[in-house]
Amino acid sequence: MSKERSEILMEYLVTRGFIWPSFEIYRSMVEVGGFYDYGPLGVELKRNIIEKWRRVFIYPYQDIIYEIETPIIMPEIVFQASGHLEHFTDYIVECLKCGRKYRADHLVEEELKKRGINIRTEGLSERDIEKLIIEHGIRCPQCGGELSKVYRFNLLFRTTIGPYSNNVGYIRPETAQGMFVSFPRVFDLAGRKLPFGIAQIGKVGRNEISPRQGLIRLREFSQMEIELFFDPKNPTCPFLDDVRDVTVRVVTEDEVKKAIEEGRDPVPIELKPKDIIERRIVPNEWMAFYMALAVVYLNELGIPVDHQYFLAKLPEERAHYAACAFDQMVYSERFGWIEVSGLAYRTDYDLSRHEKFSGRELRAERTLEKPIEVETVRVYPNPQKIREVYGDKAREVMKLIASIDEENARRLASGESIKLGDYVISPEMVFIKVEKRKITREKFVPHVVEPSFGIDRIVYVTLEHAFTLVDGDKILLKLPPDIAPIKVAVLPLVRKEPLVSIGVKIARELYRKGLKVLYDDDGSIGTRYSRCDELGIPIAITVDDRTVEDNTVTLRDRDTKMQVRAKISDVYNIVRSVIEDRKNLLNLGKELGLELVERA
Amino acid sequence: MSKERSEILMEYLVTRGFIWPSFEIYRSMVEVGGFYDYGPLGVELKRNIIEKWRRVFIYPYQDIIYEIETPIIMPEIVFQASGHLEHFTDYIVECLKCGRKYRADHLVEEELKKRGINIRTEGLSERDIEKLIIEHGIRCPQCGGELSKVYRFNLLFRTTIGPYSNNVGYIRPETAQGMFVSFPRVFDLAGRKLPFGIAQIGKVGRNEISPRQGLIRLREFSQMEIELFFDPKNPTCPFLDDVRDVTVRVVTEDEVKKAIEEGRDPVPIELKPKDIIERRIVPNEWMAFYMALAVVYLNELGIPVDHQYFLAKLPEERAHYAACAFDQMVYSERFGWIEVSGLAYRTDYDLSRHEKFSGRELRAERTLEKPIEVETVRVYPNPQKIREVYGDKAREVMKLIASIDEENARRLASGESIKLGDYVISPEMVFIKVEKRKITREKFVPHVVEPSFGIDRIVYVTLEHAFTLVDGDKILLKLPPDIAPIKVAVLPLVRKEPLVSIGVKIARELYRKGLKVLYDDDGSIGTRYSRCDELGIPIAITVDDRTVEDNTVTLRDRDTKMQVRAKISDVYNIVRSVIEDRKNLLNLGKELGLELVERA
Repeated sequence: MSKERSEILMEYLVTRGFIWPSFEIYRSMVEVGGFYDYGPLGVELKRNIIEKWRRVFIYPYQDIIYEIETPIIMPEIVFQASGHLEHFTDYIVECLKCGRKYRADHLVEEELKKRGINIRTEGLSERDIEKLIIEHGIRCPQCGGELSKVYRFNLLFRTTIGPYSNNVGYIRPETAQGMFVSFPRVFDLAGRKLPFGIAQIGKVGRNEISPRQGLIRLREFSQMEIELFFDPKNPTCPFLDDVRDVTVRVVTEDEVKKAIEEGRDPVPIELKPKDIIERRIVPNEWMAFYMALAVVYLNELGIPVDHQYFLAKLPEERAHYAACAFDQMVYSERFGWIEVSGLAYRTDYDLSRHEKFSGRELRAERTLEKPIEVETVRVYPNPQKIREVYGDKAREVMKLIASIDEENARRLASGESIKLGDYVISPEMVFIKVEKRKITREKFVPHVVEPSFGIDRIVYVTLEHAFTLVDGDKILLKLPPDIAPIKVAVLPLVRKEPLVSIGVKIARELYRKGLKVLYDDDGSIGTRYSRCDELGIPIAITVDDRTVEDNTVTLRDRDTKMQVRAKISDVYNIVRSVIEDRKNLLNLGKELGLELVERA
Repeated sequence: MSKERSEILMEYLVTRGFIWPSFEIYRSMVEVGGFYDYGPLGVELKRNIIEKWRRVFIYPYQDIIYEIETPIIMPEIVFQASGHLEHFTDYIVECLKCGRKYRADHLVEEELKKRGINIRTEGLSERDIEKLIIEHGIRCPQCGGELSKVYRFNLLFRTTIGPYSNNVGYIRPETAQGMFVSFPRVFDLAGRKLPFGIAQIGKVGRNEISPRQGLIRLREFSQMEIELFFDPKNPTCPFLDDVRDVTVRVVTEDEVKKAIEEGRDPVPIELKPKDIIERRIVPNEWMAFYMALAVVYLNELGIPVDHQYFLAKLPEERAHYAACAFDQMVYSERFGWIEVSGLAYRTDYDLSRHEKFSGRELRAERTLEKPIEVETVRVYPNPQKIREVYGDKAREVMKLIASIDEENARRLASGESIKLGDYVISPEMVFIKVEKRKITREKFVPHVVEPSFGIDRIVYVTLEHAFTLVDGDKILLKLPPDIAPIKVAVLPLVRKEPLVSIGVKIARELYRKGLKVLYDDDGSIGTRYSRCDELGIPIAITVDDRTVEDNTVTLRDRDTKMQVRAKISDVYNIVRSVIEDRKNLLNLGKELGLELVERA
């Protein structure tokens, strides 16, 4: 997109009420970058994009996918367990003269770019970045002051819960943790069977150091995530057939490394899910399945397959929880290739950590291929011997022995002495009993594959892909009908009675059916059709003189400008077919034997 | 509801996956009351309840109501302007011995209730509550320690935005402020015409001191709000006819006062919106309109009119921004009468405050009934006289006079001397010019009526009203079909082929249409029908031997247990009619000439 076009788009999005920067009336007084409002059209569009995700990712798989909604504010211990308190940081550097703070890696990249040096900072340590600053003599871009050491800044928004100042909480940086923490409840609902998934759609907060780029980097944004839990010994996805024919463009880890070595851009290859699995590009079938489903999803939003690819993340680029990860990249004329979703193999990392921090078991069970025999060693106190050694402390020692753990019991059985509290226990102080048991089931922590979508970025790339300039400057927003915010326009051909009353009545009836409708009788019909095209309204209904005679109206197709004539009483069903079933208005007209209308 | 029944309900809600307390695995380790998760059924139910609100409050009025979505985190200045930093507080008291903190008014009420004393603390000052504590010798209920002075605790969740610790932000305690702050943008979209409204649905946070009562008092919850902006000189609501026949039960301010004086419960009167307006129970038509619409809304959720009333708030009970306010109360067997929505006349309070704090004009314009003539007084310096008095300071004095305000100009025109900075200015130092202008338009700050709904409480009362015990212990969840979380069950009569395959196929097709479906082939058909009734599933489809012969299935109506037989290919349309158009399955069956089925 030429710069001019991208500016037209941004102005369009703000003035038409899709999005605008939040708190505009206070922007000159406080620093509040990274927040956007959704206007009336944005709210509808976002809702349709979310609903589409449900239709692709949840509803068809609702026998195993459970959607829940957990709080945005979570107590500190959750993020101690999840590792976010430790790892969810960016590098920050401060100007020692003016006090301004910068995201260190971005600053280095930008300052070096100005000097014609392109550098990748992803995966570098704070010391590496510091070295670059010193080596290249980078200074504060605002005041020229010297820069501080590079340190890590935690991106969690911090608050306190209740009246005690030590009860710290954070705004969640991903919806995921709410799903891990509620694992026991949902696993019960799922009949404790694997595979099963938890889905969540909701707000998250990331306290970015200095966000820019509009909807692309926000401090508050929305995610749609699934945590798919499976048995690592049985990582089969039963739904692969649904996506058998989907072409996925993938840049493998090997290709990323090679491209870096050779100093070139990585090149995606086109694969079917089956190939991705067979070539071991991903460690389990679920990842291939979700890659393909993500392609289908964006495709449904109007983003062609060749404007998408999956980019492997190198180990040093991955989030702390991920054993394997891909970013789903979408081409934006304005921002270049941007990540709109991430697919991560989180293994048993999160559940294991929450087990450890909560002391609650977060496990599934599986039947062993063959039963195994296990030996249990039990020890019982020998009161006589204990009394001989410990006299009146014997009772206490016997208590300690009663609650001895397996490891100590084994050591005693093997002839070692052990220490319990202050007491040394020798093998002769206990009776040892070795039991053999057959075990047919074992417990394990399920593994997780996580597809994670950033809604706001998807809203942006959907809009950019739909935004078309016709004949130079006429805007046509070619959103798929089920994604378009306004579904129908109702336009009296001219502003006169009874056309206006009939139009208002049709509009109100569609309102009541729950459709988003634009009623417009202001200006020439041509201008109003253009307005409909600008807002991406798939169908424009025109009330004309013939309406008064025979109760018919015309329905105009946004993309072909063709019109059919139908009875007012059939309008709602036709609109519904076009929107929900994605039927083409003209084909539908043919099917129903409707009259084709020529209008200038 | 007997205590037993209310316990059955709560257990039911948790085990069936409607709601459960958040962070359960960490509850023994941290204090995190006031947070609830929505489970899979809760998410669907909540979504349906929100969608119904849109269908009642937004969609029919979409030509003037604009839905937007603004951030949850907002900068401090917003809440300085809104008054929440100063006023959004509860009384807190601390035990001087154990350090525990209590909400002071609740503590006093509870402790006195134990002693048989019933007291209303709403509207009392901190000193009043302190007096009650001292008078009655109330001590810490946990350790018996002495209590501190009563002070005010601000309920805003505080955080910081970005890397500077002085850039304070808060989680919004109401969605309203986002709408006031974005007023200029939306007012532009509305063509700068009044009346118009902004709607918002979203999360809010209130850092309650010690929340209990499940979904009734949460620290994080969801609201649905409308800010309806109108010209106070023209407070006409054009939609009154829509609610003409709605009966609203109202407890007026006078009745509240009388009831307090007479020591009895207030009694609601039944009125139509027209009466409410004529009797001046509310200060404008919009409040009567929204009262009626709120009654309609709850009624659509299954809450009968006689389980609702509007309760006037006395001046000392109102929020700081409200000139008039009513709470919509709903009867709960468990909690008594509880507030589920609030209707407030916020006047021009919020916009005026944001004008003051932002320096941005937040006004509309109106044409004056008749043009008025205004006199403007201008003064210009008389250089000679000024030089005579102030010599080489004359230049400075002339500058001051050039930027003189209207009030000072008038004083000079009337012959007074005034002071500008350090200088006394007498009338002879200026030339005075009086101009007369005709003005036909004037600017004003719009007034606001706000209906505000707490979603979580509405979810709770909806569930409580739907929850029915049949024959003592069989649960029937009588939710309206469009509100029910699961729409259809698909049940093979017995678990055998090809019944199972046909059932799975029907279920999957309904999944793909975006319906929430339960497929179940486990147990006797009677048990499964009971399970459907428990989950409130309006229609149960049974696949039986005849299905194999003629591709028909039976559809069972949850409430009457009657069944009709229909073709598989018609199932989706029948289900849709029952759910979206609220058609009765049996009447629909008659209309379509379907066979009625008798089944045990």
